[in-house]
Amino acid sequence: MVNGVEHVDEKHGDEFDLIASVFAPLAKDSGALGLRDDAAVLRPPEGHEIVVSCDAINEGVHFLKDDPAETIGHKALAVTLSDLAAKGARPYAYLLSLSLPRDSSPDWLKGLAAGLHALQTKAGISLVGGDTTASRGGISIVVTGLGLVPQGHAVLRLGAKPGDRIYVSGTIGDAHLGLRLLQDQALAETWGLSEEDVAFLVERYRRPSPRCDLALLVRNFAQASIDISDGLVGDIDKLCQVSHVGMTLKTEHVPFSPAARKALAREPDLLPALIAAGDDYELVAAVPERCVAAFEAEAEAKQLRFASIGEVAVGDPQVRVVDAKGENIPLRHRGFSHF
Amino acid sequence: MVNGVEHVDEKHGDEFDLIASVFAPLAKDSGALGLRDDAAVLRPPEGHEIVVSCDAINEGVHFLKDDPAETIGHKALAVTLSDLAAKGARPYAYLLSLSLPRDSSPDWLKGLAAGLHALQTKAGISLVGGDTTASRGGISIVVTGLGLVPQGHAVLRLGAKPGDRIYVSGTIGDAHLGLRLLQDQALAETWGLSEEDVAFLVERYRRPSPRCDLALLVRNFAQASIDISDGLVGDIDKLCQVSHVGMTLKTEHVPFSPAARKALAREPDLLPALIAAGDDYELVAAVPERCVAAFEAEAEAKQLRFASIGEVAVGDPQVRVVDAKGENIPLRHRGFSHF
Repeated sequence: MVNGVEHVDEKHGDEFDLIASVFAPLAKDSGALGLRDDAAVLRPPEGHEIVVSCDAINEGVHFLKDDPAETIGHKALAVTLSDLAAKGARPYAYLLSLSLPRDSSPDWLKGLAAGLHALQTKAGISLVGGDTTASRGGISIVVTGLGLVPQGHAVLRLGAKPGDRIYVSGTIGDAHLGLRLLQDQALAETWGLSEEDVAFLVERYRRPSPRCDLALLVRNFAQASIDISDGLVGDIDKLCQVSHVGMTLKTEHVPFSPAARKALAREPDLLPALIAAGDDYELVAAVPERCVAAFEAEAEAKQLRFASIGEVAVGDPQVRVVDAKGENIPLRHRGFSHF
Repeated sequence: MVNGVEHVDEKHGDEFDLIASVFAPLAKDSGALGLRDDAAVLRPPEGHEIVVSCDAINEGVHFLKDDPAETIGHKALAVTLSDLAAKGARPYAYLLSLSLPRDSSPDWLKGLAAGLHALQTKAGISLVGGDTTASRGGISIVVTGLGLVPQGHAVLRLGAKPGDRIYVSGTIGDAHLGLRLLQDQALAETWGLSEEDVAFLVERYRRPSPRCDLALLVRNFAQASIDISDGLVGDIDKLCQVSHVGMTLKTEHVPFSPAARKALAREPDLLPALIAAGDDYELVAAVPERCVAAFEAEAEAKQLRFASIGEVAVGDPQVRVVDAKGENIPLRHRGFSHF
C-alpha cells in the first residue's frame, strides 16, 4: 500500500458491496444505469431547460458530527432542491458524491441512505449517479441536483424591479436557534422553550424542508427569486446586487415561528441574528405589483405560506433593515458564510 | 461566532470577492448566469441525451498536498471529462464544488483556476455553477460534468459481447510510476530513468489527459466502453461484470510508454502493479469483430492510439490475465480503491 493509492482487499471489496447495496435502491431511474456505469444518461423532455446546482455540506461546517446520519442525508439533498425550487424548477434527478472517513460504519451509511430516500421519494426523483471516495478529513457530501423548467421560464436572481413586492416563505431564524440549542442546552430555559419548541427548532436545523411545493407559484408570479441559505438579509442583498435595486425590510413583517417568538420575547436582541442567520431554506420572491393579488390568492388557495416583507426600490443595491418606527436597525453581520 | 456557522466579516468578504474574481472568468456560457445565481440554466440542443457524472478528488487520496494547484485544478476536471469520453459524449458544461481549508491562499486559488481554465479551453466548455465552502479537513474538489450524445448513442459498460475485440488507448501504468517517484526519488536510479522520463511519468500522474478526442471513435464503433480510473484489470472487470462476459488479457499486448518499459526492464515484477494501478484515464472499448477493420483504419487515419489487448469471451465475468505463453499471471490486487 502506497500513500494516496490503496489496494482493494477483501475488506474493501465488502465495503464497496455495502455501498452498492445501500445506494442501488435509490437509483430507480433507468438513466441511472443501476449506478453501475461511469455516468448517468438522461433524456430530458423536449421544450425544457435544465437547471443544475451543486452544494457541498461538510462535517463541522454544515452539520454536526453527532447529527443523526438520516438527517445529514436529508439535508444534503434538501439544500440543492432548495436552489432548484428558487429557480421555479421541478426536481428531475440528482447525483451524490460522498467523501467518507475510513471508519464510517454500515449503520451510518444506511442512515444516510434512509434520509436521502425519504426526501427523494417526497420530491419524486431518483439518484442517478455519483461516486464514493475516501476522505482524510471529515465527511463531505456534494449533491448535484438537476431540475426542469419550460424553456425561458426559469426565475433568476436578476429581474427584480422597483415596485415589486418582496415575499418570503415559511418562518425565519428557526435553524439558527436549533443549532444554538444543540450547542448549549441551557438556552432552552433562558428562552422559555418547551420540549416541543426545542424539538421543532432542532428539526428545522437538521431537516430543513426545501420548498419544492412553491416552485410553480414562484415560476408563475415572481420575476426574481432566491433561496435563503446564508441568511434573509444577506441573500436578499445578493438578489438586490444582481438586480441593481434596493429594498427596505420591515422587521415587524418578518415571519417567525411561535418558538422563535418565545425566544425573541425573552431576548429581543436575538432579532438581528435571526434575520441574518443561515440554513432557513425558505424562498424569497419578488412579485410585480400587478400580480400581487393573484399571487396572494393562489398562495392562500393552496395554503402556501408567504409573508410580504417589503418592497423593491431604486437605490443602493442592498437591504435596508428598519423597525416598526422606520428606524434603521444596525446589523453587525448581514449574512453567514461557511468559508 | 458560533461553532459551525460563522459570520461574514470584512476579511471573509474579501475572500468571497477573490473567489468570484478568480472563477468568474471561467464562466463564459450565458447559462452560467455569471455564477451569480443559485443554479445554472442550460438549454441542451434537441435530439440529444445528457450524460452526467461527478467525481471528487481529495487531498492525500487523489492528489498530494504538495502538488501544484494548477495540476490539481486540471485533474479535478480531467477525471470527470474522462467519464464523459468513455460514454462517447462530447463535453457540454461543468460545475465545481470546492471545499477548502480556511488558510487557502489567493495564489493557490489562482493556480487552481488556471488549471481548470487551460483544460476547459481545450475541451471547449465553460464553468456554469457550483459552490465554495469551508472544510475542516483537507481540500476536496467535486466536478460535475455534463456531456451530450445524440439520442440513443451513449456507449455503456453494458453491451460487450463474446467475440468483441478489446482495445485500450494510450499507455498504461505511467501515473502509478509517477506517484511512486514523487514518494521516493531514489526509484529513478533503481529504474534507470532519465530526468525526462521522470518528468513524463510525474506529469502523467498529476495532469492526466482525458481522452475527449476519442469519444467520437468510441461512439461510432464500440458497443461497450469504460475509462480506466481504478486500474486496467479492475475496470475491465467492471465492464465484464455488467456485460456478463469474460475476457483474457494478454500482458504482452498492454501498451507501455518508453519510460514504463525502462522501469519494467529493471524490475519485471512491476508488471502486476502497472496493470492494476489507477489514474490512467485511458479508455477501454469493446469493438465488435465486424467493425474492427473500420475502427483500426479510422484510429490510424486520425492518429489516435489504440492497442488491441484481448477478446471478449463467454465465461466468468472477470479478466483472466496471461503472459506471452498463455500462463495465468497471479494478481494480488485487481484494482485500486480510494476507499
